[in-house]
Parts: sequence; structure tokens; C-alpha cells
Amino acid sequence: MEPTLTIRSSSGEYPIWVGANIRKQAGMLLKDILSGKSKVLIVTDRKVGSAYLTEVSEAFAPFLPVETAVLPAGEETKSFTQYENLLTKALEKGLDRQSIIVALGGGVIGDIAGFMAATYMRGIPFIQMPTTLLAHDSSVGGKTGINHPLGKNMVGAFHQPKAVLYDTNTLLTLPDEEWRSGFAEMIKHAYISNQEFVELLKKKVQSISDLKSDQIKDLLTRSIQVKADIVQDDEKESGVRGYLNFGHTLGHAIEKNIGYGGLTHGEAVVIGILFSMKVSNALQLSAWDVESEEKWLKELGYPVNKHKDLSHKELIETMKKDKKSSKGQIRMVLLPETGKPMIAAVEEKVIQNVLADK
Amino acid sequence: MEPTLTIRSSSGEYPIWVGANIRKQAGMLLKDILSGKSKVLIVTDRKVGSAYLTEVSEAFAPFLPVETAVLPAGEETKSFTQYENLLTKALEKGLDRQSIIVALGGGVIGDIAGFMAATYMRGIPFIQMPTTLLAHDSSVGGKTGINHPLGKNMVGAFHQPKAVLYDTNTLLTLPDEEWRSGFAEMIKHAYISNQEFVELLKKKVQSISDLKSDQIKDLLTRSIQVKADIVQDDEKESGVRGYLNFGHTLGHAIEKNIGYGGLTHGEAVVIGILFSMKVSNALQLSAWDVESEEKWLKELGYPVNKHKDLSHKELIETMKKDKKSSKGQIRMVLLPETGKPMIAAVEEKVIQNVLADK
Repeated sequence: MEPTLTIRSSSGEYPIWVGANIRKQAGMLLKDILSGKSKVLIVTDRKVGSAYLTEVSEAFAPFLPVETAVLPAGEETKSFTQYENLLTKALEKGLDRQSIIVALGGGVIGDIAGFMAATYMRGIPFIQMPTTLLAHDSSVGGKTGINHPLGKNMVGAFHQPKAVLYDTNTLLTLPDEEWRSGFAEMIKHAYISNQEFVELLKKKVQSISDLKSDQIKDLLTRSIQVKADIVQDDEKESGVRGYLNFGHTLGHAIEKNIGYGGLTHGEAVVIGILFSMKVSNALQLSAWDVESEEKWLKELGYPVNKHKDLSHKELIETMKKDKKSSKGQIRMVLLPETGKPMIAAVEEKVIQNVLADK
Repeated sequence: MEPTLTIRSSSGEYPIWVGANIRKQAGMLLKDILSGKSKVLIVTDRKVGSAYLTEVSEAFAPFLPVETAVLPAGEETKSFTQYENLLTKALEKGLDRQSIIVALGGGVIGDIAGFMAATYMRGIPFIQMPTTLLAHDSSVGGKTGINHPLGKNMVGAFHQPKAVLYDTNTLLTLPDEEWRSGFAEMIKHAYISNQEFVELLKKKVQSISDLKSDQIKDLLTRSIQVKADIVQDDEKESGVRGYLNFGHTLGHAIEKNIGYGGLTHGEAVVIGILFSMKVSNALQLSAWDVESEEKWLKELGYPVNKHKDLSHKELIETMKKDKKSSKGQIRMVLLPETGKPMIAAVEEKVIQNVLADK
């Protein structure tokens, strides 16, 4: 089966397959990549593992000896403790430099298993097998990492996967809030790429259940392509890759201040997207009809006003500490028009006023 | 001052300065690299810090705000705990993606500070300021990492420094055993590069105190050049870089089985070098007069027979678990003649016989 997409990266091209039930063909599809390797370690969480670990192990077993590591589910798993446990397990199971890691799960598993692969014996290859809609974003581009008590994703590495295998059937059991969270990144990709993609989404997706159909493969492929085009041009995030943070500066601050888990990542990002439009308007860079954009997002169930309950002062302090900020100045992605993102330092006063709806 | 050497790497060229007292000019020499940065964090250990931290901080202070982190001295510092502490300190001190790390110390500090730089916010730049002879080897080439209870350097990353600043005056206070340990890597570089360099060392260095003179700058520069030539051709250790492991397969096993600290790294490597010559002879690849090579090394104070007290069975088991081994087969660097290293899988029986002097 031909890959759905092929991505360029500093460590060579890698294939992405998107399709229903392809988890069961994992070994066969990855045959060339597995060739000459010594062992595979499948890393997953309890939830995903109980549904798919047996099938995926069986898909690899004809090609290589298979080891497994099952972590607790949830964001707390992206910790030093779990990272160290995973390295210990790999050493105990005798993984060597010719071994390969498979990350079977959502973004949390992709991030920690990818970081473990990036740093085990100074780096061994890994495969992404995302099982959430949100992970269509995080599984491409090579960002891996764990959280620090003082900040999310503060510890990590760029480590490109050797392949991404995306079984759309594994999405079907996700609760609506997970679909909604993942769809936010698709919306973001549309806004920063082109109007036609935005229109397409507005037309095809009027409720979350519209996503749970055959059209998901095409929407996913298109969304991944936007991300791929950007990361191919800027693997290490020195320039255009920053556009992918559209909606994320306020989004991350909301997540942090509300307590992780109080909102989904995507819900926070959608609030950030609308906020970024408002800031662009305030700076007279754009003339977004924010109410009209908000309407569609509200209908999809996004809690677009949830940030209003939070302390603006604290949100601003958190934004100043964002990885993308420098010397205490807030830098964020603005959107003068669809497909034309830009990164700018924004004065605190402007942020304050827009947060206060002034 | 022009750099002594310039090294190519995947993240661009970087300069190496070697010279007496250049620690005091650190800020000035690195002016271009520091430009536009937000902050510098100097990482050192208590021993080196008490001698040089004030001077080095003062050398940077006119250019950037300076923060410092002082770790305990010794190999135990390359631990998860210290790694996590260092990241916490960096976050607390407000280091951002525009900050830069300076590793002031021996190989332990270079390895842990480099790994911290490699993974802090997915990678920030760092400078190596080695203060031991051994670190002339480890500070070039981009290997960084920490130890795991199950193995040395099992966790790490390739992360190239932005510059190496080597003040030869900081070596003068080292005890003889540290000079001896570092000189072993110089000997290794000579054997794997060319006979003339071997002859030069044999002529110029008949006792360890011969190193503590002005000639050290030239010997160091020459030794670093050998390493640089190899890592430039093979940054990620897929081919010729493996030659740098000459003497290290048995060397590491001895270190591990004797307990780290029972011998210096270089002492163990010298035993490994002689062992590799013997294995090359046993395989009829070479006709080393091992006794004659041994004689010079013994005179320099290397305990060339120390491995004989260890269990050969355990040494072999450890060699099988070496990062360079695969599928339980021992792979090591052999030396058919000076300047012509090769990597080969060697049968266990041959290893056994050579260890037993059969």
C-alpha cells in the first residue's frame, strides 16, 4: 500500500499512512523500516492498550521480537518518573541501538515514547501510531517531550519518526470532547493555510458527529499536509513553524491557569484563535467578523468564553513565560487574513484591553 | 584572537580555542555567539567552581546576565536527579530559548550540562569550557548524556556545542592520575590516525610530567584534530566514528566490573587498547609487538594488567551489553596497523582466549 503522504525531514523522508483498520497491517506496511532491526518496544497506555495492544503486537510479531510497556493514561504520565521507568524497562528488555520504539496512543504517549526514543542510547528510531484526533497534529513534525512541574513540554527534543501509521478506526471510540479537542488543530491548520479549507470545514462539519464518517480520512490528510508543509520548511522552529502556535499562546495560558484537565487542549486553543483574531483587529491589522467565526465554533460545542472567569493578570504572567516569549515580552501569532499568519511582540496593554473586551 | 581549530557540524561550524589563561577572555572571544542572547547559565562542579567560577562569571558579565549552577563533583553527578535539578534551576532562573549554557568542568559537567542544553525547551545552545585533559576528547563531537543505574551513558543526545574554549592553565592543578586518564585518549587518537603521531608522543612524553609544559597546547590541538576529522565525517556514529571506540569495549567493561572509580577511564582504555592489539594479532590481522607497546605505557604508570583480577565471564557479559553491540554479539575496534582501524564482530571464543592469554 502506497503511503498517503511522504514528509521530508532532516533525518530523511518518512511515510504517513492514513486508513481504516491499518493497525492490523502495521508490520507489513513497515517491513522495510523493520528490516535489520533487533527488537520492537510498543509503548502504550492502559486505555489504548486494552483495546489494541494485542492486535498491534500480533501485527509486528512475524517481523521482530516484540516487547511492550503499558503506562497509565493521562497527561500526568508525561513525567520524569515515567520517562525514567520507560528507559529502565527498555534496558531491562535488552533494547539496543538497533531496536525501534512504537508509540501507540494519543499525544501523551507519542511525546513521552518519542522523547525516550530520542534519548535512549543517544537516539533510536521510532514509529508514531496515533489513536486520537488531536495526535494527528503532534505525531507529525518531530516534537517530543515531557512536562516539568514548572511548565508543560519544558523538557524534550526534536526527533523525527520513521513513519506515522494512522488507523482512523481507532478514533471511533473517542468521546466527543476528544474529537472536539483534535478538531481545533484542524481548524487552526485551515485558518493559517487557506480560505477554501476553512470554507470546506464549515460546510462539511456542522456538528462533531459529522467527523465520525468516511470523510475523516480526507480531512485528516489535508490537515496533516498543512502541518507537514510548514515543518518541512522549518524543522527546528526558528521561523515559519511558529505559525503553528496560532491560538496557542493564550491557549496554553488558559490550560495552565485553569489547571490542566479543566478544559481540553483544543478547547483552549479555539479560545486562543478567537483571541488572536481580536488582537489582530485591535492592532488594525485585520477586520475579522469575530462574532460570525465564534458562532460556528459555539455550535460545535466550544466553550468560547471560558477564559473570562480567569484572572487576566495571571494569564498575562503565564504568557510572558511561554517558551516562545523572550525577555518577558509576549510574542504571539496574529492573523491579518486567512492563510497569512505573522508572529509579533504585542504590548501588554493591548493584551489587557482585548482580554477585558475593551 | 583567531580560533585554534574550526569544526564542521550539522548545526554549523564551531570554533575551538586552545590557550593559556583564555578563561578570562571567555566573554570577549564568544562575543558573536552571545550576541542577541538573553542569559547565560554557567554549570560547574564544586571543585572546579571554587577555583574558576568567579573569574569565568566575570568574563561573561559584561555581555549577558549570568546565572550559575554548582553541582557535586564526580561521576555520580551524571544522574537523573542532578539532571532534573539542573532543569528546575534553569526554569527558576528564567532561562528561555534565547539563553545559553556554559559547561565549565571535566567530562561529567560537559555531559550533563550538554544533555540539559539538548533537552531544555527542546534544545538551547551551549559552550564547552573543559578543565581536564580527558575532556579534550568529550568536549568535541556533540555526545552528551547521563548514566542509568543499568549502564553508563545510556541516556543522552547528540548536541553540538557552539564553541569550545580550552584554557590549558586549568589543567595544571590536576593530579597525575587525571593527566594519565586524559592522555589515554590522546594515545588512542594517535594509534587510530598515524604512526608519526604515535612516534611523536613516545618521543615527547616519557613521563606524565612531560605533559605539564608548553608543548601541551600543540599535542592537544593535534589530538582534537584527529577527533574532529572523524566526527565531521560521521556525526551520528553510523560508521567511521565507531573507530573512536578503540580500546573502549573492554575498557568500559573493566570500568563497570571493577566499579566505576576503581580505575580511571583512561587507565581502563589503555588496557582495552592493548587487548584490541592482542585480538587483532589472534585473528592474524596484525603482528603487533604488544610487549614493546606495553613497555612505554607501563613506564607512564598505566596498570596494564589490572583486568586480570576480574572475572572474564563477567567482562564478556558486559561487553555483550555494550551500546555498540547488537543482538548479543561483541563488536569492537581492531587495529591491523596504526591508522587503519576496523570494526568487527569477534567470536566469544577468541575474546575468551585472549583474555586468558592463550
